[in-house]
Amino acid sequence: MIVILKKNPDEKQLNNLMAWLKSMNITIHPSQGEMHTVLGLVGDTSVVDIDLLRALDIVEDVKRVQEPYKNANRKFHEEDTIVPVGNTQVGGNVFSVIAGPCSIESEEQVCLIATAVKAAGATMLRGGAFKPRTSPYAFQGLRGHGLELLLEAKKLTGLPVVTEIMDLSQLSLFDDVDVIQVGARNMQNFELLKELGHTGKPILLKRGLANTLQEWLMSAEYVMAGGNQKVILCERGIRTFETATRNTLDLSAVPMLKKLTHLPIIVDPSHATGISWMVKPMAFAATACGADGLMIEVHNDPKRALCDGAQSLTPEAFQDVMDGVRAILPHAYHMPKEVRL
Amino acid sequence: MIVILKKNPDEKQLNNLMAWLKSMNITIHPSQGEMHTVLGLVGDTSVVDIDLLRALDIVEDVKRVQEPYKNANRKFHEEDTIVPVGNTQVGGNVFSVIAGPCSIESEEQVCLIATAVKAAGATMLRGGAFKPRTSPYAFQGLRGHGLELLLEAKKLTGLPVVTEIMDLSQLSLFDDVDVIQVGARNMQNFELLKELGHTGKPILLKRGLANTLQEWLMSAEYVMAGGNQKVILCERGIRTFETATRNTLDLSAVPMLKKLTHLPIIVDPSHATGISWMVKPMAFAATACGADGLMIEVHNDPKRALCDGAQSLTPEAFQDVMDGVRAILPHAYHMPKEVRL
Amino acid sequence: MIVILKKNPDEKQLNNLMAWLKSMNITIHPSQGEMHTVLGLVGDTSVVDIDLLRALDIVEDVKRVQEPYKNANRKFHEEDTIVPVGNTQVGGNVFSVIAGPCSIESEEQVCLIATAVKAAGATMLRGGAFKPRTSPYAFQGLRGHGLELLLEAKKLTGLPVVTEIMDLSQLSLFDDVDVIQVGARNMQNFELLKELGHTGKPILLKRGLANTLQEWLMSAEYVMAGGNQKVILCERGIRTFETATRNTLDLSAVPMLKKLTHLPIIVDPSHATGISWMVKPMAFAATACGADGLMIEVHNDPKRALCDGAQSLTPEAFQDVMDGVRAILPHAYHMPKEVRL
Amino acid sequence: MIVILKKNPDEKQLNNLMAWLKSMNITIHPSQGEMHTVLGLVGDTSVVDIDLLRALDIVEDVKRVQEPYKNANRKFHEEDTIVPVGNTQVGGNVFSVIAGPCSIESEEQVCLIATAVKAAGATMLRGGAFKPRTSPYAFQGLRGHGLELLLEAKKLTGLPVVTEIMDLSQLSLFDDVDVIQVGARNMQNFELLKELGHTGKPILLKRGLANTLQEWLMSAEYVMAGGNQKVILCERGIRTFETATRNTLDLSAVPMLKKLTHLPIIVDPSHATGISWMVKPMAFAATACGADGLMIEVHNDPKRALCDGAQSLTPEAFQDVMDGVRAILPHAYHMPKEVRL
Repeated sequence: MIVILKKNPDEKQLNNLMAWLKSMNITIHPSQGEMHTVLGLVGDTSVVDIDLLRALDIVEDVKRVQEPYKNANRKFHEEDTIVPVGNTQVGGNVFSVIAGPCSIESEEQVCLIATAVKAAGATMLRGGAFKPRTSPYAFQGLRGHGLELLLEAKKLTGLPVVTEIMDLSQLSLFDDVDVIQVGARNMQNFELLKELGHTGKPILLKRGLANTLQEWLMSAEYVMAGGNQKVILCERGIRTFETATRNTLDLSAVPMLKKLTHLPIIVDPSHATGISWMVKPMAFAATACGADGLMIEVHNDPKRALCDGAQSLTPEAFQDVMDGVRAILPHAYHMPKEVRL
Repeated sequence: MIVILKKNPDEKQLNNLMAWLKSMNITIHPSQGEMHTVLGLVGDTSVVDIDLLRALDIVEDVKRVQEPYKNANRKFHEEDTIVPVGNTQVGGNVFSVIAGPCSIESEEQVCLIATAVKAAGATMLRGGAFKPRTSPYAFQGLRGHGLELLLEAKKLTGLPVVTEIMDLSQLSLFDDVDVIQVGARNMQNFELLKELGHTGKPILLKRGLANTLQEWLMSAEYVMAGGNQKVILCERGIRTFETATRNTLDLSAVPMLKKLTHLPIIVDPSHATGISWMVKPMAFAATACGADGLMIEVHNDPKRALCDGAQSLTPEAFQDVMDGVRAILPHAYHMPKEVRL
Repeated sequence: MIVILKKNPDEKQLNNLMAWLKSMNITIHPSQGEMHTVLGLVGDTSVVDIDLLRALDIVEDVKRVQEPYKNANRKFHEEDTIVPVGNTQVGGNVFSVIAGPCSIESEEQVCLIATAVKAAGATMLRGGAFKPRTSPYAFQGLRGHGLELLLEAKKLTGLPVVTEIMDLSQLSLFDDVDVIQVGARNMQNFELLKELGHTGKPILLKRGLANTLQEWLMSAEYVMAGGNQKVILCERGIRTFETATRNTLDLSAVPMLKKLTHLPIIVDPSHATGISWMVKPMAFAATACGADGLMIEVHNDPKRALCDGAQSLTPEAFQDVMDGVRAILPHAYHMPKEVRL
Repeated sequence: MIVILKKNPDEKQLNNLMAWLKSMNITIHPSQGEMHTVLGLVGDTSVVDIDLLRALDIVEDVKRVQEPYKNANRKFHEEDTIVPVGNTQVGGNVFSVIAGPCSIESEEQVCLIATAVKAAGATMLRGGAFKPRTSPYAFQGLRGHGLELLLEAKKLTGLPVVTEIMDLSQLSLFDDVDVIQVGARNMQNFELLKELGHTGKPILLKRGLANTLQEWLMSAEYVMAGGNQKVILCERGIRTFETATRNTLDLSAVPMLKKLTHLPIIVDPSHATGISWMVKPMAFAATACGADGLMIEVHNDPKRALCDGAQSLTPEAFQDVMDGVRAILPHAYHMPKEVRL
């Protein structure tokens, strides 16, 4: 941590600061410039409150040298993390494709789609039972009953299932769910993250609509600090001034996260664009830049989907995307040679 | 609702669309342009799924004519809403000032600050017991015990208290709290909002970091749809590319919300700027443009505050802000003449 | 164009509005809803000032049905535009790779790099003579002399050259330049765009840092309205709240622009990320989602580049990127089968 | 400047770096942490290319300690700058109000408005002759002839005039203009800024739509580095995700700029909001937080204005805003007691 002092700092306040830092076992390396004195702090600076430092009269600015996350930091864990999920895994030499309907509507619907996406090569089944909707008047999901139907589809196809939790009170219903999804709007629901850190379940953590990579990794850190290292990151678009697409898919995040963290990272082109015909080009791009997998909405009748029909693919269109992804995969950035899909 | 069709739409699909709309008791007014046919939909279009419409092959675009919120909409409720809180109120001819520490640290601390802010004219006491922190390693608040200390300060001073809920499981502890705060990161925690709609408590709903005014009002609508009309909106800065301040305080939101909704709106300059000396000018600006009140962090020893010390005022600095606000208040935009502070 | 009237509009004002619209040969299709009357305007609405309409007391909102650009609009020009450049082209079945140094530093430097990028398969040479720098104290380019050196490299290699104009007063120096680049900061320098519309030169128009796709196409329209149809669009990242990369590369723009316009679109991963090792994954992603080409910074000694060294590739690294791009290209989205690179 | 090295840097590369820095007369203060070595650089670090440093293999990150602007920096120039303009000034104890039409349309129009705004207390007259319009098909201003009409209004009223330059080629027409305005889209038109630095005219520099305070001050630095210290900053709203107002007026910029720079800062609520009834509350807010003045659009017939009618006030509404501003002014943040309007 670097502390930049104001010109001619009050000596007594400076001594107080030095004493306080030393009391936390921080070693101080001062360097005197023309306009500023700069203090280099060495030691476990995670105990120092950066906001408090900034609040001091004699301090002009404080800059962090080290990332504030540890468990998620590749510097402390060089190997890629592989998250085992049922009979498959996320990360390593498996390219994961999580496909299924936005909302679970009926047993017939979810089973039909599950069978279709499995046939096309999907490695996991997604389906929403608890649905976050901006309007209280919109369909809110089949909730507990939806989970039951999803588990029927799991039994039928053998595909591990991924579904979203919206509140801690729902957790007991997720016993047979393979991967618990935390949605973008809950990325900083810290109470939820803490509790999920005490489960042994893989957590698929979506990026918040306006959250930085560092904040995202801090949310992963919340789960990991509780003991659960099975975190899968999912980029799903961020909010910008552009209105032609629903969100702006930030694909630069993929290689940058690969550098910052050892956790696997997948991409959801369906929610990012909100437009079904854009899923294919953006799935191709995500594959090419080194993502560990994709999350794609598929519906047997997108025109009648109870939510987000506009962004769902038909099973035929999904098969077409899969064919294209398989062709690009061997040529993708940093992809292990033996990658499987 | 306006549906813009693609050029030369398939006739069969068009007939299907017309029939489907009519089945929902929607009247259709077509107008034929050179490049597009436009359908004007009249009736209760809140039952029509706008995303589904957009997904249709023959549809180029759909535009909403009416706001998707009803309870919060000034068009359906012309009078300003006044939210009674203990011996005071928010909205109408009272200018509310909610002041207190970011975090409750001890009985001595919260009582000392409560006494000071009451003396300076604050109408309510704020204090954080459950603290949302981006790092799992940062102080998370005194939690249940913090609430007890806050209620001691309420007993001592008679000030109604405002404090943040972070998860539904905490709700039973809020019985004696006067106003339940929903933080920016929970603005779209829909399960929480729904449940708060079934309490009779005033809800202080902070704007999310990257949420539009319409999304914010939809979140208010979640609370109101449950039967609880006592919603207070609180602007606290949005996320932009600017890094000189923590967030960008969006004061244009104040007069614009006054037009869109009948709910009272207050401003939190402490969190928006994250810098204690900026609280004063931004409190002045918020007052001048017609806010119904302010939320300000005050600490007896900001240098030692366990969180967010950088943005807290001393009791003396708070008194100085209050004096300035009182001078501006009679000249503020659209302020009732008999406004009290 | 759709005009949404306020409830119970003043009859006299409404008649005035109707008369004014009819005077512009606009046909009006009114539809009466419960809360609003909506007017559908049919005819050449490009003559109607949308801001003026919005300013009227009786008008609640105005929504545009048709895009405000014509020359650039795919609806009026279905075929992909191919821009011929020297012995090559941009668009169609050629995948363009424009490579070269950020700044031209010396004849030796630019010729060495030009030879290297040609050998690796680049189709055009880039090099900055006039350099936009945020600081007046930073290197501003070799200016006129830099252009001369660039033309030497063109003579040596036969590669067509692309270089940036910063002010109209420089135009006379661009006679032998093959493609004139308009930088992101000049995307809305309308006087410059108008004048370039009167040249016969291909214009490479970079997207502004915070400009929407529609604004970008309106800037293309400025050039095309002057008679010059040879516009090449170049996505180079937009400004968001994320700070881990310099800008956020918006690859969704590629397929979306392909739908909105017939103009070719290339991607600049060097400026978007500002980090040399990220050029490769983002070049792969841009190729996969259907871009017509890439613009990449290459330097013989990136550690000593006078500007933007951090984002330049060595010739070896560039060759490696080219190999990867060639492998992905046949599998890319909507790529013509006979695509050449 | 602070250089953070990677763990275990290559010794030879480190020695090269040290030698290179010393060759620029930089003194190096290293401090050895557990994970990183940090180098504190002391001396004139403005000669060090920060991007080049970041590009080095052994460097993890570089952080700037000192602002990159000098002439505009309050640290080197403590006194507020006062810009004299004709018979008035901007900054100091004068609160400037620059009012007038968006576009100059006729002699009658501009003279009528000039007389009205003078009567209401405006200190300067604004009026657009060269108009930046996003569409090539929109009215582009009366250009040279517009300037002549503006100067007629100056002669009539004695008000100094402010008008926008769009290209260097227009500069010779600005001889009798009192303040040359650089619009938001030209904030980083560096060739224009450089040339304006060689004139003796006051420059009103609007903030770019997506530019940080630091970039804005660097643009001021371009003008000042040429010898012209008469720069007036004008905040006019930034681009965010919010769509309810045209732009988001960033009023926190006012007090923050007062800290960073000695230049005067005024606020344009007309362009920021794009809505005439919002000018009043936002003018009040800008005054309250310590701006040195306002820029406001006034039109005798806003319904017929050739551009931006939606955001113009009638002379009566302008008078009303002035009355309110005068009432708030004595109570505004950091306002000199003897402030005049």
